[in-house]
Amino acid sequence: MSESYGENIQVTIFGQSHAPAIGVTIDGLPAGEEIDLDELRAFLSRRAPGNNAWSTPRKEADEPEIQCGMANGKTCGAPLTAIIRNQNTRPGDYANLRTVPRPGHADYTAYVKYDGSADMSGGGHFSGRLTAPLCIAGGICKQILKREGIEIKARIQAIGGIEDPGDILTEEIGTDFPVIHVEAGAKMQECIAKALSEGDSVGGIIECVVTGLPVGLGGPLFDGMEGRISQAVFGIPAVKGIEFGVGFASAKLRGSENNDAFCIKDGYVQTETNRCGGILGGITNGMPVIFRAAFKPTPSISRPQKSVDLTTGEETTLEIKGRHDPCIVPRAVPVVEAAAAIAVYDALLGRRKEENR
Amino acid sequence: MSESYGENIQVTIFGQSHAPAIGVTIDGLPAGEEIDLDELRAFLSRRAPGNNAWSTPRKEADEPEIQCGMANGKTCGAPLTAIIRNQNTRPGDYANLRTVPRPGHADYTAYVKYDGSADMSGGGHFSGRLTAPLCIAGGICKQILKREGIEIKARIQAIGGIEDPGDILTEEIGTDFPVIHVEAGAKMQECIAKALSEGDSVGGIIECVVTGLPVGLGGPLFDGMEGRISQAVFGIPAVKGIEFGVGFASAKLRGSENNDAFCIKDGYVQTETNRCGGILGGITNGMPVIFRAAFKPTPSISRPQKSVDLTTGEETTLEIKGRHDPCIVPRAVPVVEAAAAIAVYDALLGRRKEENR
Amino acid sequence: MSESYGENIQVTIFGQSHAPAIGVTIDGLPAGEEIDLDELRAFLSRRAPGNNAWSTPRKEADEPEIQCGMANGKTCGAPLTAIIRNQNTRPGDYANLRTVPRPGHADYTAYVKYDGSADMSGGGHFSGRLTAPLCIAGGICKQILKREGIEIKARIQAIGGIEDPGDILTEEIGTDFPVIHVEAGAKMQECIAKALSEGDSVGGIIECVVTGLPVGLGGPLFDGMEGRISQAVFGIPAVKGIEFGVGFASAKLRGSENNDAFCIKDGYVQTETNRCGGILGGITNGMPVIFRAAFKPTPSISRPQKSVDLTTGEETTLEIKGRHDPCIVPRAVPVVEAAAAIAVYDALLGRRKEENR
Amino acid sequence: MSESYGENIQVTIFGQSHAPAIGVTIDGLPAGEEIDLDELRAFLSRRAPGNNAWSTPRKEADEPEIQCGMANGKTCGAPLTAIIRNQNTRPGDYANLRTVPRPGHADYTAYVKYDGSADMSGGGHFSGRLTAPLCIAGGICKQILKREGIEIKARIQAIGGIEDPGDILTEEIGTDFPVIHVEAGAKMQECIAKALSEGDSVGGIIECVVTGLPVGLGGPLFDGMEGRISQAVFGIPAVKGIEFGVGFASAKLRGSENNDAFCIKDGYVQTETNRCGGILGGITNGMPVIFRAAFKPTPSISRPQKSVDLTTGEETTLEIKGRHDPCIVPRAVPVVEAAAAIAVYDALLGRRKEENR
Repeated sequence: MSESYGENIQVTIFGQSHAPAIGVTIDGLPAGEEIDLDELRAFLSRRAPGNNAWSTPRKEADEPEIQCGMANGKTCGAPLTAIIRNQNTRPGDYANLRTVPRPGHADYTAYVKYDGSADMSGGGHFSGRLTAPLCIAGGICKQILKREGIEIKARIQAIGGIEDPGDILTEEIGTDFPVIHVEAGAKMQECIAKALSEGDSVGGIIECVVTGLPVGLGGPLFDGMEGRISQAVFGIPAVKGIEFGVGFASAKLRGSENNDAFCIKDGYVQTETNRCGGILGGITNGMPVIFRAAFKPTPSISRPQKSVDLTTGEETTLEIKGRHDPCIVPRAVPVVEAAAAIAVYDALLGRRKEENR
Repeated sequence: MSESYGENIQVTIFGQSHAPAIGVTIDGLPAGEEIDLDELRAFLSRRAPGNNAWSTPRKEADEPEIQCGMANGKTCGAPLTAIIRNQNTRPGDYANLRTVPRPGHADYTAYVKYDGSADMSGGGHFSGRLTAPLCIAGGICKQILKREGIEIKARIQAIGGIEDPGDILTEEIGTDFPVIHVEAGAKMQECIAKALSEGDSVGGIIECVVTGLPVGLGGPLFDGMEGRISQAVFGIPAVKGIEFGVGFASAKLRGSENNDAFCIKDGYVQTETNRCGGILGGITNGMPVIFRAAFKPTPSISRPQKSVDLTTGEETTLEIKGRHDPCIVPRAVPVVEAAAAIAVYDALLGRRKEENR
Repeated sequence: MSESYGENIQVTIFGQSHAPAIGVTIDGLPAGEEIDLDELRAFLSRRAPGNNAWSTPRKEADEPEIQCGMANGKTCGAPLTAIIRNQNTRPGDYANLRTVPRPGHADYTAYVKYDGSADMSGGGHFSGRLTAPLCIAGGICKQILKREGIEIKARIQAIGGIEDPGDILTEEIGTDFPVIHVEAGAKMQECIAKALSEGDSVGGIIECVVTGLPVGLGGPLFDGMEGRISQAVFGIPAVKGIEFGVGFASAKLRGSENNDAFCIKDGYVQTETNRCGGILGGITNGMPVIFRAAFKPTPSISRPQKSVDLTTGEETTLEIKGRHDPCIVPRAVPVVEAAAAIAVYDALLGRRKEENR
Repeated sequence: MSESYGENIQVTIFGQSHAPAIGVTIDGLPAGEEIDLDELRAFLSRRAPGNNAWSTPRKEADEPEIQCGMANGKTCGAPLTAIIRNQNTRPGDYANLRTVPRPGHADYTAYVKYDGSADMSGGGHFSGRLTAPLCIAGGICKQILKREGIEIKARIQAIGGIEDPGDILTEEIGTDFPVIHVEAGAKMQECIAKALSEGDSVGGIIECVVTGLPVGLGGPLFDGMEGRISQAVFGIPAVKGIEFGVGFASAKLRGSENNDAFCIKDGYVQTETNRCGGILGGITNGMPVIFRAAFKPTPSISRPQKSVDLTTGEETTLEIKGRHDPCIVPRAVPVVEAAAAIAVYDALLGRRKEENR
């Protein structure tokens, strides 16, 4: 425990890569919310592996099958469960992973934690495939949030050290390859292709912004929006860091450089700058919430790597076969949006408890 | 909701800066655990304001009074509540903060969230003073963890861009000013003094390491150690970023550069490097857990700042009087240790549920 | 929120009577626990509608399909999700229930709560069918508990005022009709048949006993075993009361009549009597936990009943067609066992956190 | 874990009978709610021991000291903590209880659970005194609920088998001794006095009604109002049973006798009778919620009782000295109201999440 996220909705993700299905249950969704399944499918297709250099050739329809929780196109108040059947399973590829753990993967830690009983075929419950049900939950939250005027978008901010300059708030993000500057995107794709050709992988940074938020979501101490969003975003495998607003850079600044002055704009209290990333004292201040998440390079590389044989206790060399993304960052962009959507919607519902007097 | 942290213990922090008391309740502490109150006081004194350049001149004994949960020097199985009475309160200093919010503070967001009913005197529930009860809870967890061979230590890794080089794992950390290299520390103190003399403040980074961990704490997805520790650490006011292992730097690396090869050392499975910060697939791998948290500069500065008057809706200039730290980073070092201790102990108790067969 | 039960495992039940599927997710099951699917099916078949006087003629295979959470016949540490596909759906029968609520049912309250968006076809999420996934979760917990020496059994203690005398602890319970005394069972069946022939239904009481429990499960105040078991048992539709040990009868006794004297038996501390139902101060005392749950008569009866039309706001008369049990008590016996198993296993896992030092 | 109750507010009770203090923290109270401390004191005084035959001669001021969570007479959005200092402690009386457990008490189960480290002086965390902080939390919730038109009242329905006839909904309840019929009350007091004079104690039943509830609180399955209220009420030591509406009696009825017909009254949908106790499908139906809780007789009696010496493992005879109530039922009446208030207010806040669209 626990695969669950949320105080006001409860999102529980289940499934293993090569089990009959993966899926998600969302409990606590208010009744009467329309869910556009085509829009949901379109959102999911953004993380689906595609015909390009940077994603695994494994093909999955990733068709979400709503089992319950809806009636007449709307939520009905009962928990919503959706599953995705695993079709294209090739357990043979992973036969040697049980006893020789892949560096950078959960093979070893799962082996010990589950005392040899883990189902690690295809990465099992640790597979990147589990981000598909996360996207189902997040996609549903996104649709509801949008009707409340809250929008969430993310972009690749960097891959392998190559940055996409641009301003996520004001500039348009590409659809095929989610960057603002096409040239930066082209360089990133070259970087990925080069890594792939060398049997290697590469990491990156995803930036996400949430606009249209009311003042007052989140709360002090452990209730803060930073902690709430972090817990959701660290639920995405491969994330190793997160920062809000100017984040780590604020550690180099003085208060006079970092504080955001309050002003009146369009009749509302706003801040002139947004170095705090839209969060003060753990609470949204009405400005856009901005954060960045660091993704480590995919640990699955085809180069020989040093590992140990857990049965013999001896060091050995491992060569990983199978289908892997040389860089998961492009496909992770909607996943970050999904995690943010879940965290924000959960906080929004929590806010209603205190407001409605 | 919620000021509470934890799945297996539940740490609830309460209090406002100028209310009768602040404090903490820890529910779920196993019975029979010795708590050395002198050691706890010594731990708390590390965050207490002192006679130095970098901390507020406000003096508080910060004496924790255990109200219940102990008998004969040991936990008794009932919830442990400790309070710290607020003695040196000077609410007058903050009289003008109610309607003119301080930039970078929770004044405005709390004003809206609590609909004008927030007690913001001295920062209220958002005050840095609330990290004292966090340290009580964390200090108690630290003592218990130490008996299990798990130790936690933190240092100032940077202030105002000045870094402490050194290796936190192998080198000794100073006690007066918690850095490894005295010269780096001296430069940081100069940096703080300069900011103070200019009516300003400065931010920094704290690095923390947890050693002696067993393999198997945490879990996949939302159960991961990164998310668990983040939620605790973002509970500390002023934290705006966190990263594990090489963290954001891993986004620039290739898989072959970032993966930690498994090896056999002293008869145990270990990794040759520790770029993952001791966590794989959200689960501890037996190597030290290492993370860094970015602290923004204290928003309270004595320079005039632009703000708005919430009653008139007009822009105005604010000058903050009162007692404030020009840099909270030195005093925040034990607070980061405390947050880590709570998160780790909670995960350790959770681990027992699956192990004990 | 919340359809979930548990602090240490988390059981989430989902589905509507006429949706594609109903099911359950159990998070937090320790890895390596064998699950015998045949035994699980046999347990589920005890609540399945049968060829007899007292159950609905609706036929469902109620075949649980494990979607994930297992590998090689054992739990693998990942959440276990099982679904039961709804095959024999006849939504037409319920067409008139949307606007004319059935007395004693959730039709009206669900209508208001979900603002007209509830899926009440076949009772929707409120259907007795949802006790099938409860039995999946409980059946799995029962299997694990049995290996720890903890056994759970229940019987019909009364139907329509006809009581089964006998002692649940020492006497054998029938399998076809779960009572101790065959004659009492025959009278109960007559009572049910008579009610059915008169277009009516009848209620009853189920008694449940848990043996083999260690001392120390549960805790004081809100952590007590009575509250934990109650929350699980009230999760079963139609339960309107619960009592532990002598229960309501203890309200008539004196302390000297109600207290259970401690004694030494077989070298262990035991109590001479067990009026407290195996729970003292909310904590198991090692004696069998005994409780009784009161089931109201099935609200679905074929007699005309007075109701209102929610669209016109006028009073009207309702005649319910469809398939209904004249008495759900016989089929609810395994459901009560399942609820008890979930509550006890959750408490047992919680106990491990404090023990394992 | 856990001494906490609630999904939307979180009520955590702490303290031991002879520790410095007992108290409660309520997290999640919306800001801006007035709390009348005199009214709260008056509510608490209803459970205070008094100058009468049926309560312990131990005198405690039971003065609640609000430590935080309020400002200017209103909740301020931060957690509210109140403590009651233990003044009149006489630990000597209980010296022999450590190794010879009192029948009917938690002495033995706590001894085992906490491995000899429990603080059982005066009953420790299991003492009836812990119902005082429960009343603080409940009293605060009652005040807020009253402003929403929701009122809660309870009465002694029976003591030692002597019943108070009357209708709790329509008739007035006495203040000195909370029954409707003075004569029934007089007989109950005689019954208590007789038990006391014989060194014995006696149990009883408390009936509670909640009026003014909106339709829609609670939910299906584990979210039902019966389970929510039960969990709160079983948090009161000595409660061994609970039933809603006609409760156990419904087990003897037919559906046609038990169903409550819907009708239109005063322009609203209501039910002609209220056998379901205001709850259908786990959800409030707008009618009064009615329940009864069975209290066992106080286990502390002055007659010699058989027990065992846990140090020697031998059977022995125990005589309990000290101050005890011969019947806790009269003092428990406000405690039941408090538990109901907490459960109802928590459900009311939960309802706001789904409503406010």
